[in-house]
This record gives sequence, C-alpha cells and structure tokens, in this order.
Amino acid sequence: AFAELDLERTARRGFPEAVYCAGKTAAQVGAIAAAVAERPDVTTLFSRADDDHAAAVLAALPDAAHDPAARLLAWPPQPPAPTGGLVVVLAAGTSDLPVAREAHLTARYLGRPSELVVDVGVAGLHRVLSKLELLRRARVAVVAAGMDGALPSVVAGLVSAPVIGLPTSVGYGAAFGGVAALLTMLNACAPGVSVVNIDNGYGAGHLAAQIAAPEPSR
Amino acid sequence: AFAELDLERTARRGFPEAVYCAGKTAAQVGAIAAAVAERPDVTTLFSRADDDHAAAVLAALPDAAHDPAARLLAWPPQPPAPTGGLVVVLAAGTSDLPVAREAHLTARYLGRPSELVVDVGVAGLHRVLSKLELLRRARVAVVAAGMDGALPSVVAGLVSAPVIGLPTSVGYGAAFGGVAALLTMLNACAPGVSVVNIDNGYGAGHLAAQIAAPEPSR
Amino acid sequence: AFAELDLERTARRGFPEAVYCAGKTAAQVGAIAAAVAERPDVTTLFSRADDDHAAAVLAALPDAAHDPAARLLAWPPQPPAPTGGLVVVLAAGTSDLPVAREAHLTARYLGRPSELVVDVGVAGLHRVLSKLELLRRARVAVVAAGMDGALPSVVAGLVSAPVIGLPTSVGYGAAFGGVAALLTMLNACAPGVSVVNIDNGYGAGHLAAQIAAPEPSR
Amino acid sequence: AFAELDLERTARRGFPEAVYCAGKTAAQVGAIAAAVAERPDVTTLFSRADDDHAAAVLAALPDAAHDPAARLLAWPPQPPAPTGGLVVVLAAGTSDLPVAREAHLTARYLGRPSELVVDVGVAGLHRVLSKLELLRRARVAVVAAGMDGALPSVVAGLVSAPVIGLPTSVGYGAAFGGVAALLTMLNACAPGVSVVNIDNGYGAGHLAAQIAAPEPSR
Amino acid sequence: AFAELDLERTARRGFPEAVYCAGKTAAQVGAIAAAVAERPDVTTLFSRADDDHAAAVLAALPDAAHDPAARLLAWPPQPPAPTGGLVVVLAAGTSDLPVAREAHLTARYLGRPSELVVDVGVAGLHRVLSKLELLRRARVAVVAAGMDGALPSVVAGLVSAPVIGLPTSVGYGAAFGGVAALLTMLNACAPGVSVVNIDNGYGAGHLAAQIAAPEPSR
Amino acid sequence: AFAELDLERTARRGFPEAVYCAGKTAAQVGAIAAAVAERPDVTTLFSRADDDHAAAVLAALPDAAHDPAARLLAWPPQPPAPTGGLVVVLAAGTSDLPVAREAHLTARYLGRPSELVVDVGVAGLHRVLSKLELLRRARVAVVAAGMDGALPSVVAGLVSAPVIGLPTSVGYGAAFGGVAALLTMLNACAPGVSVVNIDNGYGAGHLAAQIAAPEPSR
Amino acid sequence: AFAELDLERTARRGFPEAVYCAGKTAAQVGAIAAAVAERPDVTTLFSRADDDHAAAVLAALPDAAHDPAARLLAWPPQPPAPTGGLVVVLAAGTSDLPVAREAHLTARYLGRPSELVVDVGVAGLHRVLSKLELLRRARVAVVAAGMDGALPSVVAGLVSAPVIGLPTSVGYGAAFGGVAALLTMLNACAPGVSVVNIDNGYGAGHLAAQIAAPEPSR
Amino acid sequence: AFAELDLERTARRGFPEAVYCAGKTAAQVGAIAAAVAERPDVTTLFSRADDDHAAAVLAALPDAAHDPAARLLAWPPQPPAPTGGLVVVLAAGTSDLPVAREAHLTARYLGRPSELVVDVGVAGLHRVLSKLELLRRARVAVVAAGMDGALPSVVAGLVSAPVIGLPTSVGYGAAFGGVAALLTMLNACAPGVSVVNIDNGYGAGHLAAQIAAPEPSR
Ligand SMILES: Nc1ncnc2c1ncn2[C@@H]1O[C@H](COP(=O)(O)O)[C@@H](O)[C@H]1O
Ligand SMILES: Nc1ncnc2c1ncn2[C@@H]1O[C@H](COP(=O)(O)O)[C@@H](O)[C@H]1O
Ligand SMILES: Nc1ncnc2c1ncn2[C@@H]1O[C@H](COP(=O)(O)O)[C@@H](O)[C@H]1O
Ligand SMILES: Nc1ncnc2c1ncn2[C@@H]1O[C@H](COP(=O)(O)O)[C@@H](O)[C@H]1O
Ligand SMILES: [Mg+2]
Ligand SMILES: [Mg+2]
Ligand SMILES: [Mg+2]
Ligand SMILES: [Mg+2]
Ligand SMILES: [Mg+2]
Ligand SMILES: [Mg+2]
Ligand SMILES: [Mg+2]
Ligand SMILES: [Mg+2]
Repeated sequence: AFAELDLERTARRGFPEAVYCAGKTAAQVGAIAAAVAERPDVTTLFSRADDDHAAAVLAALPDAAHDPAARLLAWPPQPPAPTGGLVVVLAAGTSDLPVAREAHLTARYLGRPSELVVDVGVAGLHRVLSKLELLRRARVAVVAAGMDGALPSVVAGLVSAPVIGLPTSVGYGAAFGGVAALLTMLNACAPGVSVVNIDNGYGAGHLAAQIAAPEPSR
Repeated sequence: AFAELDLERTARRGFPEAVYCAGKTAAQVGAIAAAVAERPDVTTLFSRADDDHAAAVLAALPDAAHDPAARLLAWPPQPPAPTGGLVVVLAAGTSDLPVAREAHLTARYLGRPSELVVDVGVAGLHRVLSKLELLRRARVAVVAAGMDGALPSVVAGLVSAPVIGLPTSVGYGAAFGGVAALLTMLNACAPGVSVVNIDNGYGAGHLAAQIAAPEPSR
Repeated sequence: AFAELDLERTARRGFPEAVYCAGKTAAQVGAIAAAVAERPDVTTLFSRADDDHAAAVLAALPDAAHDPAARLLAWPPQPPAPTGGLVVVLAAGTSDLPVAREAHLTARYLGRPSELVVDVGVAGLHRVLSKLELLRRARVAVVAAGMDGALPSVVAGLVSAPVIGLPTSVGYGAAFGGVAALLTMLNACAPGVSVVNIDNGYGAGHLAAQIAAPEPSR
Repeated sequence: AFAELDLERTARRGFPEAVYCAGKTAAQVGAIAAAVAERPDVTTLFSRADDDHAAAVLAALPDAAHDPAARLLAWPPQPPAPTGGLVVVLAAGTSDLPVAREAHLTARYLGRPSELVVDVGVAGLHRVLSKLELLRRARVAVVAAGMDGALPSVVAGLVSAPVIGLPTSVGYGAAFGGVAALLTMLNACAPGVSVVNIDNGYGAGHLAAQIAAPEPSR
Repeated sequence: AFAELDLERTARRGFPEAVYCAGKTAAQVGAIAAAVAERPDVTTLFSRADDDHAAAVLAALPDAAHDPAARLLAWPPQPPAPTGGLVVVLAAGTSDLPVAREAHLTARYLGRPSELVVDVGVAGLHRVLSKLELLRRARVAVVAAGMDGALPSVVAGLVSAPVIGLPTSVGYGAAFGGVAALLTMLNACAPGVSVVNIDNGYGAGHLAAQIAAPEPSR
Repeated sequence: AFAELDLERTARRGFPEAVYCAGKTAAQVGAIAAAVAERPDVTTLFSRADDDHAAAVLAALPDAAHDPAARLLAWPPQPPAPTGGLVVVLAAGTSDLPVAREAHLTARYLGRPSELVVDVGVAGLHRVLSKLELLRRARVAVVAAGMDGALPSVVAGLVSAPVIGLPTSVGYGAAFGGVAALLTMLNACAPGVSVVNIDNGYGAGHLAAQIAAPEPSR
Repeated sequence: AFAELDLERTARRGFPEAVYCAGKTAAQVGAIAAAVAERPDVTTLFSRADDDHAAAVLAALPDAAHDPAARLLAWPPQPPAPTGGLVVVLAAGTSDLPVAREAHLTARYLGRPSELVVDVGVAGLHRVLSKLELLRRARVAVVAAGMDGALPSVVAGLVSAPVIGLPTSVGYGAAFGGVAALLTMLNACAPGVSVVNIDNGYGAGHLAAQIAAPEPSR
Repeated sequence: AFAELDLERTARRGFPEAVYCAGKTAAQVGAIAAAVAERPDVTTLFSRADDDHAAAVLAALPDAAHDPAARLLAWPPQPPAPTGGLVVVLAAGTSDLPVAREAHLTARYLGRPSELVVDVGVAGLHRVLSKLELLRRARVAVVAAGMDGALPSVVAGLVSAPVIGLPTSVGYGAAFGGVAALLTMLNACAPGVSVVNIDNGYGAGHLAAQIAAPEPSR
C-alpha cells in the first residue's frame, strides 16, 4: 500500500493523474504500471523516468511510448485526436530541447494540437520574429529558456495569447540551476506571462492543455 | 521625453498598456494622464499608484475610477461590457484582499466577468469546499494567498480550469515577504498552477483576462 | 578516543542517544556498535546508515534490525511494548516514504504505538479526508511532504493534536532540496504546526515520542 | 463580506481562531471585534495588533485585556482556569521578551498553567542551569532566542520534555532578521526540538497548549 | 583626519576620485568640498548625495552643478569638451531614468560625448529597433533596466559595441531590489555584456568613459 | 525581573558584560544603568544605544562617556591604563568610521592601547602601504571595510599579526547590507583572517582585547 | 532541426557565434561541426566541450585546435593576425588557470593580441606590482580570481584601462561556487570594474575583444 | 610558469605559504613539490590534497608526513619544537574530526603546542564542562562544529581566551553545507568568537598559531 492512484481524477478534473517517477523505486513504478494496465480508457503519463523506471514500465506495458530525452512514457501509446486550441512550444536554445519536448508531448497526450520550435533565442531576434505568423495562431505559448530567460518577455510583447514561462536549468555559475531564468520570467516587463517550476515541462504542458481546452470539455 | 507610451499595444496585443506608477514622479504620471485624455477609445490603468500619483491622475482625468486599497485607477471609469469566460478570484485571508482586488478589477477592466471571494484559506477547508459550484463555473481561477500559499494547490486539485497562483507578501519572519508562498505555488503538487510575481495583482488579472478571452477577440 | 557515547542520556532525558552515521567512517561506526553490545538494556538506533555503515553494525550486532529504505538500524531488534499516545505518520506522496518510515520506526523503537499512512497529498483532498477517524485518535501527527509541503497546514486545520511538519527533499528546481516545503510549513496558516529539519525523520519521530509519552514516564 | 470568521474552530479543533491583525485595516479589525462580542463563550485573541488595531478592538470590547509589548489582546479578559501540563517559556535575553510574552500569554489564554523566565542565554550557562528544577516540571518548553539561537539545543539536552524553538529577530547583520537563529534551531544537535516561524510567539504558545493539553480535552 | 582624498588618482589612472556621500555626515562631505575648492583643475563628482549632502556641497562650492534625480553634483560645473567615442545610455522604462541619468552625466563629466534614450523596454520591441542607427554609432552602450532586465541581451545581439548592463532596483516582489535584473544580465545569452552593481549609475558611466576613451588619453 | 546581569563575568572571563541596547526599551536600559551604578569597580559598556537609550543611561550615570557616532556609552568614563599589545584598527573608507570607532573604543575600554587609521582602502594601495610601520607594531589588527571588503586580505598578506575582518554594511545593491564584504573576508586568500558579524565593532574590539591581552591577565 | 546557427552574426555584430556544448548531446555538436565545415571564412569556437563533445568536433573537423583545460575548440585552427589593443589576462592563483586560459584564447581567436599572467593574487602584493609595466600597456584587463575575488579591485586602482572581473568557482564553503568572488567584484571599491558570469572565460574574452577592437573594425 | 611560489612569505610574515591543491592537477602539485625539495629550511604544507595529489607529493618528497583524513601533507615531516601558547582544538562530534585534525596539525606544524578533544557537543553539556581545566590553559581555542554550531558560544562564555569558530559542513537539509553553523558562530551571543570559512581547518590552525605566537617571534 505504498501508493493510492487518484483514478477519479479524470472524472473530477478532466485530466488524468501522472506518475512522478523520481524518488520512487523501479519496483514501485513497475507495480503502478501493472495496475494502470487495467485502465486503457485513461492516458497515463510517467514523468521523470530514468532508464530503470522506463524498463519497469515497459515490462508491464510493452507498447508504451517512450521519449528518453524527455524522460516521459505514455500509455496507451497513441495520443488522443487533437481538439481545442493550438499549443505552441518554443525553446530558446538547443540545450532547452529536452524540457521543451516534455511540455510538447504532455500537451499532445492530453489532447491538444501542438507545434515545437527550437533555437529562437533573443541573441538573434530575427529568429523569433520569423515565427510570428505561427505564434499568432497559438491559443497559448509555452516558452522554454535557460540562462537569462529573456525570451518569454519578448514573446509576450508580440502576441495576445497567454505565455507560460518555462525556466530551464541550462546555464552555469550565476544561472543557479535555473533560478536566474525563473526570476526573469516572474518579472517579465510585458504582462501576460506566468511561470512554472524550473525544468517542469510536464507542468507547463498540462497547464497549456487546460488553457487551450475546447469549450465543451470543461 | 521621459516616456514613450506604447499606444499601439491594443492593436498589436488586444490589450492596452498600463502605467506602472512606482518609481515615477507624480509629475510624470500626471503628464502621462494628460496625454491619455486624448484616447478615450482605450481603457488605461494606472497601477501601484500612491496618494500623490492618484491626485495627479485625478487632476488630469477627474472622472477616473480609483480604488485606493488596490492602488489602481482606470479611465474611462466605466469597464467594458463583460465578454468571454468567468474569472474567479479567491483570497485566502482578509489580509490578501488588496492584492486580490487589484487582480479582480484588472480582469474586469480588460473586459471579463469576474467574481471575488475572500477568507477561504485551508485552515478551514469547509470554506473553500462551499465555493465549489462557483469554482466549477470559472474559465480561470486567480488564487491569492500569503503565509504558506497552500490554497492554489488545493483549488487546482478540485477543478479543471487553470489556476493562477498569486503569492502575497502577507506573513512575517520566514515568509520572506511572499517568497515562501511563491515557492509553495511553484511546487504545487497538483498540476495546473502557474505563478506570477509576489503581490502582482495586475499581472494575474491581465493574464486571467487573456486566458478567458472570447474566441473572436484573439 | 574519537567518540564519547552519551550513555547517561536515557537516565537524564528518558531517551537514548542515537548514532548519526553520516560523516563517520564505517570503522568508527563499527567500533561504536561493538561498545553498544555491552548495553542491551538501552535501545540504540543508528541513523543515516549507508550500506557500509550497515555492514559494520551488523558485523558487531548480527541480529540488529535494519530498514535499508529508512537507512536505520536498531538494536536490540525488538521494539519496546508500546505505551503512551498514538503517533500517526502521514506521507503526502510515495516518494516521501523513506523519510516517513524513519519517523515511524523511530517513534516505535522509542516506545510508542504508531501508524503509517501513505499517498494522501492535497492534490486529491478526499484521500486525507478519508483518514479523519484515524487522525482524530492521534496524540500527535507527523506529516511528511515535499514539493509544496501543503499537507501539514490542511491536517492541522482538521484536528486538535499537534502536528510535526517533516519537509522532504522530494521535488526539483525551485523545491531547492526541501527548502520550499520547509518554508511552507514554517508559515502554516493553521496554528499547531512546528517543523523539523529537511528529511529529518529521526528527529520527527523522536519528538513525537516525547509528545506522546505516557504521563508516568516523564 | 471581507472576513468569514471560523467560529466552528473550537468545536472542530478544541481551540478558537485568532484574528491576525497585520495587513487588516483598523476598521476591519473593529468590525470583527464587534462580531466577536456576541460570543463570550469563546476566548478570542487578536495578535500582531498595533496601536490603531488595539484602539479599534477596545472600542468594541472595552474590557478586553491588552498587552502592548506582546501586541496581543484577549476577550473575555479573564483566562480560563489552568488545566493540563505546565508550559515553561524561556527567553535568552531581555530583547526577546516581547515575543516570549506573546507565547506565554497565548498558552495561558488557551487554558494552560505557564511560567516565564528571562535572560538565561548560553553566554552564562549558570543561569539556565539554575532553572533545571523548574524545567524538569515542564510538560513542554518554549525557548525564545535571537542572535545565535543556541539555547534550545542546550535545554533539549537537559530535559525529557519536548522543546519548541522560537527564533526571534533580535540581532543584526548576519542574524538576517532571525534566520540565523531559525537555522540553528532546525539543526539542533540534541533531538527533541521543533521550530516555529521567526517571532511567532502566538504559534509557539498555541502549539505548547496543544502538547500540554489534559487528556480528556482531546 | 576622517578622509584622505586620493588626489593623485587623475595622474595615476587618468580619472579623478569621486566622493561617495552615502554613510558620510553632511559635515564630512562639506569639509571635503571645501578642500576640493583648491583644485579647479580636477573635475570632482559627489555621488549618492541626499538633500543635506547637496546643501553642504553647495555651501562650499556654490556654482556646483546639481542633478537631484541622479543625486549627483559636479564641480567645476562645466563638463570638459567631449573627446573619444560615443557613449549611448538606454533606459528600459521611465522608472529607470534616475540611474540612467547618473550614468549619462558621469560619462559626460569624465569627458565623453553621450546620448540618453528612455522607455525602450522589450515589451514593445519596435521602440529599441527604432534606435538601431544611434546604437550602431556607439563605441559602448550602457543599458539600464529593472524588472526582468532583458534589454541588454537584446541590445547586445544587435550591435558590435560592448554593452554595460546596469541593473536597477525597479520592480517589486521577486525582483528582490534588482537582483533579478542583475542575474539576467550576468546570464545574457548574447556575448558582449558585462554588469555593474545594482543602481550603480556612477560605476557604469565611469567604465563607459574608460572604454570610449580616445587613444592618446590612455 | 526582565534582566539578570552577568556580574560574575569579569571574574569568570576577565572581561565584563556589555549591555546590548537594541531591542530593549529605554526604561529597561535605564534600570540596568541604575543597577550598574553600584559597581564602579567594573567598566560597563552600553552598545547599540540610540538617542533614547543614551538619555536613559546618562540620567542614571551622568558622567558616563558617550560616543554618539559609535552608539556607545561607557561607565566609569575613564578607560583603564593600557596594558598588553597594540590594537590597530583600520577603516577602508570614511563611511566605515562609526563601526571602526566602536571597535577602537571597545578595545580601549577593555584595557588595551589602540590606534585608529581611516580611509586606506585598496583603490589607492599607497595609502595602506604608507602605514606598514604602524601595522608591524600591532599585536592584532581590526580591519573594517564595506563594499568589496578586500582590505583584510591585503593587510593579512603584509603582516604576521592576526587580522580580524570587520565587515560593514556600507555599500548598496549587491553589497546586500554587508554580506558581500563578509563573504570576501571569509574567503580571504591570505591566511590569518577571521571574521565577526557585520557592523559588530563591539565584538571585534572585544576579541582584539583578548588576543592582545598581557600574559598575566589570562 | 534542433539548431539554427546564427550565421549572419559576423556580418551583423562583427563577431561569430560560438557553440555552447553543455546540455547538447555529442551527436548534436558533431552535426553542428559538420555544418561549420562549409564556412572556413568564419572562426567558430566550441565552448564548454567535454571529452565526448571534443571527439565529435574532431571527427568532423580533424584539424581543429583543442585546449582540453579550457574545454575550448576552434576551427579553423589558426587564429587571425592580431589587430587592435592588447588584452591582458591575469589569474590570481594556479587554480584559476583553466578559466583564464578560456578568456585568453577567446580574445586571441577573435583577433586581439593577448598576454596571460598567472599566480599574482593579493596575498603577496609584490607579484602584481611587478607586472605594472605590462598592465599599463593593456587596452583592457581581464582579471580572474576565486576565493575572495579581491584582485580586480586592486588592479583597477592601478591602471586606467577598463577591468573585466572574471569570478571563478575556486574555493569552498562560503565561496559558494564563485558567488563570493562575484559579489566582491560587483562591489569593487575602485571604479572601472564590470563583471561577467562565474567561470565565464568565453564571455570575458569576447567582451575584451570588443573593447580592444581596432577603430576600423567597428 | 603556472605557479609563482611566495618563498619570501616566511621572511615577510613569519609563516610559510601553503599549497592549496584543490583545482590544481596532480602534475602541477608534483612540480611544486619538486621545487619545494630545495627548501628544507621552510615547513611546507599541502592542503586539500586528494589521493592523486598526495601520490604526486610523495613521489617528489617521499618522507613527507601525510594525514589522509585531514587531506594534509607536510614536509619536512617533523614539526618544529613547540613554542608559544597552547592551542586547544575541540570538535563537537566525531563527524567533525577530519576538519578539526586539519586545524590541529596546522597549528602544530606552524610551531605551537596543541591538544585535540573530540565529541563534546552541547547536547551533553557535562562533556565540555569536564574539559574546563584544559580550556583554561589555552591561549586560544579552535572550536569545530557542524549542525547547529552552538559549541563556540558555550565555550566563549566559559573562558577568557579568544575562540576561533570553525564551522563544518556536517549536517543535512537546512544545515546548507555548513551555512547554518557559520551563521550561528557569527552571531555568537558571547563576545570573543570570530569565524573562518566552512571546513577551513587550515585557516583556523594558521590563525591560532599566530594568536598564540611567542612574543619574540613577532
Ligand atoms: N503591476 C505591474 N506589474 C508588472 N508590470 C506592470 C505593472 N503595471 C504596469 N506594468 C507594465 O509595466 C510597463 C510600464 O513600464 P513604464 O514604461 O516604466 O511605465 C508596461 O509594459 C506595463 O504594462
Ligand atoms: N501570529 C500568528 N501567526 C500565525 N497565524 C496566526 C497568527 N495570528 C493569527 N493567526 C491565524 O491566522 C488566521 C487568521 O487569518 P485572517 O483570516 O486573515 O484573520 C487564523 O487561522 C489564525 O489562527
Ligand atoms: N554589539 C554587540 N554584539 C554582540 N553582542 C553584544 C553586543 N553588545 C552586547 N553584546 C552581548 O549581548 C549580551 C547582552 O544581551 P542582553 O542580556 O539582552 O543584554 C551580553 O552577553 C553582551 O556581552
Ligand atoms: N585550505 C586553505 N584555505 C585557504 N587558503 C589556503 C588553503 N590552503 C592554502 N591556502 C592559501 O592559498 C594560497 C595558495 O593559492 P595557490 O597559489 O592557488 O596555491 C596561498 O596563499 C595559501 O596560503
Ligand atoms: Mg543556438
Ligand atoms: Mg480568516
Ligand atoms: Mg500519489
Ligand atoms: Mg542579558
Ligand atoms: Mg514605458
Ligand atoms: Mg576615501
Ligand atoms: Mg599561488
Ligand atoms: Mg557524539
């Protein structure tokens, strides 16, 4: 009795519970995966899964989808048909890609259409400016950035959609593992930005799926 | 030439620029208010206005609406007719009221219907549980709390709408002027919470207005 | 002469000294275990024992009880018959289990009856609400939580027993290794919560044993 | 409707709600005091009351007890007859007295017998050692200290009762408004210490009253 | 003998010593000003001068130039004829103006041509983009910003001149008095940015004057 | 019974207790001063005395010595005849003078010969180098500095005497009220430096008096 | 499409983009190196390259220059002929050498003449004083230091050239991975110092190359 | 030319330079050791030496003394005959032993008589009280402690000798790697305590040797 899965969450909130693997043993995660096998009606995500966690999930759910970079597994492996508004995920640099993928896949597995764009940081403004047309189609934008974390401020100044700032731990020294980017985003001079925890791609993607949810689903 | 008002912001983003009064002299704010008088087509908000700032605004715009507790002025004084989804603003304690009002009024002046509920902190769970019917009608919830900042986690676990955590500087000692509540919200164990800066009622209200915007307006 | 065991502590305080293994060599811990073998009248705990420490203890005290997850050893292996009030230990998530077990076992080895309940975090309030009957029988509750650390505030609002907040280092990014949960608990909006160090299951269990001690024993 | 007093708290938890005045206007506190006048069956405390708050309470409840140093008011003014175990409150220095008084009075108004001892810091150990007889009669000790916050560690090493560490903001420079003392207490090398927020005399006294509560009252 | 003015500094370093008024009494500053009156050959700046400091300087040096917003005085009042490269000072918002002026005036009094541009923050990118022609003429740019401190990253990505990031204490909550902006600038994703202390307009202007110094003067 | 003066401290430690006025009411300090009047055999210092504290002391001890800048009073007013080694106190800048005077006077009132040298910061190395002869006669040096706090490292590299680093809160922005200087001194690359609390002139002077004590007195 | 190299940066800014390897997979870095092989007209630097990154670069660009201590690769391997002013790089201790080399090589590969001097920390002032002649020839000085970070203050007091403070993570305990040195440099009591991120040798070298750029090149 | 040993330091300061191995390669340390072999007249210490560093030193100086726990080597291996006052080193717990040994050996190799006492923390006051006679013979005490860092305050209250607080990184969670103990010691309520960096046994021992130096040697 080490875990009590919140199986009523989809009924209550419209979105299923995810299994946060960090801090759990592979055996515990495997047991949860085995229990999940009874519920193909619900899409279950396993986040922060290291290699051992992933092996345990795949032993119980061999056809689960697995993105090692994003440390994410999903079962059933096929995401739902997309409904609701478009979720655009931007990554400032290539090093932010794993976290950005976690957000992108989460939004997609929770039922939204989603696009991912990489390496559009503010050191070369023309890169993000060239994506304006896509950005203006977004119902919500997730903007992942480490180091100075400046990209969400710039994006929010260009579009009317809400922006979810996703600070990453990319950087060193006074980046303090993402704290610098987190503070930048909390202080965005353009209104319309809110922030999730450092490297929390899952949380950003979940929130984006809620914001872009189709009217009937709420 | 101490200020260059971003008058195209409504055209570009769908929401007008606000005047952040803190750090400006009353004379500067007054001059901006005088310039704003030419543009009754746009709703201008003056945030973080102390008594001197407010007097300067009212001298230029005598019929401006003024909420001293929220330190907010708006002109023209009448908010637009409400469109889009419902913005519900919750305040955990009475001491969080000024910040919660700033969020509530901002959402209202940016065009959304909005309801404000006060003193429903988690020390007496029955209080927030009694508001479930209202919360389930919300397109987005803004949840203001100081001290432990625990209320957004609880609310996010109960509803499918996105939750904007609004940490307040209420508390003392190891509340660190709202940092404790901010961290709590960034680490909300229920997905669906994002966070704005401490005491940033304006930012929370603005973001809520964007999330709840009617489809045609985007 | 690298250690001077405080063997009079049981006489003086009513509770024996524990051996904190972190920072000691396995050889030092083994030598202490050998000295302890002379004193079966006192229950000795070895906390924060890694695999090498555990092997050294077991070499000297082969029948010692060992809980690897909690990194705890006890000798003699049989806990005393339970006396005094009930210690209820709650863990918000499965990842908090090792620390919660350390608290639970400590309280039990110091002589109290104790119950352990896991995975009752505030993201699904129905889980903790379903344990109200047990909680109301507690003389003291230990509540372990990482991430937002919100569970102690909620529990304290529901019962009259004192609550010991036990922050864990579960979480990432702005969880800062348990600091976020620690601050949440220090700022609990419901009175009746005090806090021990991050991941300090031993300290929480010891304190709980003191609070729930039977009258004659003090 | 700016406040929703939790009047069922005594029934639910055995202890009444207190009114935290900081961040409330005097008018709000006065209105709460007027509502409280209907409930002489419950002891209501007003904590963190400045001069204006106190005047507003006394206007509505002229016979309320008022301790300006502790910034505390109580009504009805007469504390209940003492029941349960003894609460001993120690203050390391004279400068810690206001916070220590807040703890002492809170415990007393919540129904416990309580003793207050001042100026027994570790710079002169003979002072605390001379109080050992009193300390050993305590069911629980509240130990207030600023600067190095070392007194709770020393006291916990001398007695079997649980110790509530109450860090104060006394000190300067690297005392960081009580953070140094808070950390000291969280890291007490003697088990049996838990900690409340900096300067939170109310919280310490409330918790002490719970720990020392008579068996039947729970 | 409370001060020993470093009168040889101009000979040694090419730039005169400034008098940092904060923490000095008005009497001390006045005595220094009286001593300075003997040396019209050197331009002396008095920085961080409050009203009392300014009065004391003006009593000794009645024709000193005084900019109250920048809290700066200079004597002799006339800056030297401009030599060397152009120093461009940008302020992200109107609230950053006092600090930006301090930088601008310092550069000017140390002998450089200097231009000041205000209210070109990244929330409306068109504003800074409209200043590209001026920026490309700069030998060095000083970029003052509070809140998210994102402007220096953007500017550095657009020009080949070195950029001095000048974080200001504008903002609230998690701006932490300029720390957020400071960290942003230290982590600028565009190379070519270095940073001075928060609100240190004097230091930024001095450094800019050194970078833009004409070849013969070094 | 709000204070219990440690009158045996001189017998026990060789140095008398000082009265730390901050956080005490003027009435409390006055009462202590009145008690002190009975003990002219002991030199009593009153530290951190604001104007009200000073008036209360002077009412009870009219001939007490008072240095308002250092916020220090001493009674009896005449310091003892100097014995032991020389205490040299250096202040990096004029703004560090009040704290440096507190150290200088404390050492002097505790019986040592002491010299004070001001405005010898590392921005002009020739200033401290010109004091080498004095520094080499010191039994111990107290070096007060704010901002970068670099002076103790430089001094320790030049002399064989121990150096007490005395960080001051002089500076702004990322000086963090003296934390920057404190860290610099804790990390002095020249061995022979230890550090006291920020602005703790009393502590530095006391320690210097102990280090330079004449052999017989210990 | 995981990376979008900013190939126009040399045209736009006069300096090429560097590839920041940390956080990228070796495969990604190798693919970028292969793309770079098409552009021998631009000098490309690969910074923060671990052994795997270096192997991937060398597979694609076998003649690339590689400095393992500085974790830097450059291609084409021959730096441009030196133009512009002299960049002097100082390292306080031997442990600061890797970071200092990164700065030195970067400046050199971006086209400047550069000299590197090691082990001239302030604990033995004669060492830096013996380099005065070289320092006075510098157009800009980069000063790397860990621990107390005091060397830039001392250097800036001796020369008229601008100083770039380069804090390193050398030190332990309260060095906080370079934060102590960073703060020291931000608070340099000698004007003329600005600071880059901890261990950011690349950034310091790049900025130095910009400051010392020959007039025509800008 | 990666190192410039400060061979005149003994002449200048009376104490030789030590080689700080952390951050140096084994090859660099070995080369320094080879150079040192020419100077048997000076005692050279190698601090923070890991296994590779130690092997390199022993290759060049085969008879060097090596204490692996303290990570210290000394050559020539025989410490000087003891002169000057007694240095007493106390360690609060067994886990503090490595750092305490580093202090003890340093003081001894720099020429002082020294005694080391372990496991006398404040959780059992009788332990330190039983060492009073030894403590009162000390010319200076070094007191190493982690966790709450309370022992220096207690020791300073008992003796007239100066106390060097030596915080260790022992502890977990909110010990923050020794920061809690460091702050405790900086805020010691008993005057006479100064502090060195966390785990800086070398620095503490060096300073103690200076304080206890015989009169003629200075
Ligand atoms: N309370 C607030 N928090 C954050 N941003 C704000 C706030 N009030 C106004 N702003 C924004 O701050 C900018 C105004 O800065 P300024 O140019 O100094 O007036 C505008 O972009 C506003 O939308
Ligand atoms: N000093 C205090 N520290 C912590 N909580 C307090 C304090 N005083 C009152 N409270 C609690 O704060 C809550 C009152 O918040 P409010 O609804 O804003 O009055 C109640 O739950 C009180 O029990
Ligand atoms: N500036 C100071 N810094 C640190 N401790 C001080 C200072 N002034 C006095 N003390 C000590 O603080 C204690 C006084 O505390 P109290 O009993 O509150 O007066 C005595 O032990 C004094 O020696
Ligand atoms: N553990 C230590 N802590 C602080 N400083 C040290 C330590 N060991 C050696 N040192 C000093 O650090 C300097 C050596 O730096 P380096 O030139 O890199 O060898 C010398 O001044 C030594 O006296
Ligand atoms: Mg890129
Ligand atoms: Mg309430
Ligand atoms: Mg769970
Ligand atoms: Mg006292
Ligand atoms: Mg503006
Ligand atoms: Mg000066
Ligand atoms: Mg060296
Ligand atoms: Mg022990």
